[in-house]
Amino acid sequence: MISKSQISFIKSLQQKKLRKEHGLFTAEGLKSISEFINSEYVIDTIFYTENVMPKLGKLSHNIKQVEISTSELSKISALTTPQQLLALIKIPETRVLTPQMLKGSFTLALDGIQDPGNLGTIIRTADWFGFNRLICSEDTVDVYNAKVVQATMGSLSRVQVEYTDLQKLLQDCPLPVFGALLHGKSIYQTNFDVEGIVILGNEGNGIRPEIITYISHPVTIPRFGKAESLNVAICASIFCSEMRRNS
Amino acid sequence: MISKSQISFIKSLQQKKLRKEHGLFTAEGLKSISEFINSEYVIDTIFYTENVMPKLGKLSHNIKQVEISTSELSKISALTTPQQLLALIKIPETRVLTPQMLKGSFTLALDGIQDPGNLGTIIRTADWFGFNRLICSEDTVDVYNAKVVQATMGSLSRVQVEYTDLQKLLQDCPLPVFGALLHGKSIYQTNFDVEGIVILGNEGNGIRPEIITYISHPVTIPRFGKAESLNVAICASIFCSEMRRNS
Repeated sequence: MISKSQISFIKSLQQKKLRKEHGLFTAEGLKSISEFINSEYVIDTIFYTENVMPKLGKLSHNIKQVEISTSELSKISALTTPQQLLALIKIPETRVLTPQMLKGSFTLALDGIQDPGNLGTIIRTADWFGFNRLICSEDTVDVYNAKVVQATMGSLSRVQVEYTDLQKLLQDCPLPVFGALLHGKSIYQTNFDVEGIVILGNEGNGIRPEIITYISHPVTIPRFGKAESLNVAICASIFCSEMRRNS
Repeated sequence: MISKSQISFIKSLQQKKLRKEHGLFTAEGLKSISEFINSEYVIDTIFYTENVMPKLGKLSHNIKQVEISTSELSKISALTTPQQLLALIKIPETRVLTPQMLKGSFTLALDGIQDPGNLGTIIRTADWFGFNRLICSEDTVDVYNAKVVQATMGSLSRVQVEYTDLQKLLQDCPLPVFGALLHGKSIYQTNFDVEGIVILGNEGNGIRPEIITYISHPVTIPRFGKAESLNVAICASIFCSEMRRNS
């Protein structure tokens, strides 16, 4: 059973401003919620429909549990097809990033990605390839947007995503800075070595000129056909694959 | 100016059955329609809003042109944000595919892809990497679905997509048949040589068992992290990249 004010509170979390204000976001579905439970994220409440709770196993006493009907779930769900469970999860505190923290590994940095599906798919792909940190410029779509959370398929529980002023971060950065650009060295001839930041740009406009300035290694995925561009999540995946293929 | 019956006719083309019945599909936006005009596709009608036609250049007399208002466009558009132009385009006749026709190059074959965005992105990616033919099982989402057309970003005008009974096609196929599976040889150690069919499966269930039977080369994208799976369009892109990287 869920009250009208709870319904409107949960629906309000579909807005970035209110997620920030309350420090909460929603995740849906058994797989996704299970993975958040087994991570460092703190679960506040789980709303569940009949018979589904045993599948989650034993839960900490700190997690509030509320049984609701299927029609109540459809009122709070952000999905077209609600999936039995919806959890309220605490947004972790943001950390101050320094280039030093990024040494010894590869980090994808997204400059202004707008499509929730693209960001979610990039997080899922980064997780597959074992990259557990992602940096986003401040104008990148919010990672706690329900569509992003959904598209990560649980991978958000393992990939740490930090929003930061990219330009500031890149100033005095001691790491190689790779950038996905249309005119760079072929990715197939690029030596990624052991560490670096890999910048991918906005869907329509690419990487901002003020960020391009900091790219020490412009890299291109060679084009063999006639498409004008590649989708940014596709681009990210080919970078992830190339960084791992010789490791 | 557009009549009520024209509006309902164009909207009816959002259904596969009626697209098939009338042999027409819709494409929207200047870029996409320009690319169809410069291809082998036959344009039936272009609905345009004020001032946008000159951007299309000189058009054949066979193309009907109808000026409409922005509010009329929003009534016939399948997009959330309509883009000045909508074209009715003839669905090309299906060709009977034989394995012989696929010799000497690589062809992606999709077994039951359901998400329009995934199919569209795969077509765009295939076009980038210069693969100009794609095969779909009969239960794959319809390529003339407006969301698929939109996601191809014009690449559908260059990539020939054929629906066929995959099982029949693979019987007595003289080409190597690669398949994206969870347990196969690493894609980084796979020699793709010069020709073959590359099978990618449904988002939830993968490749059907009756199709797996025909795979001579099971191939895996190695997992370095913990995501359970990769999105199928991401998977397709890494296959495309690997097939081209040594060519």
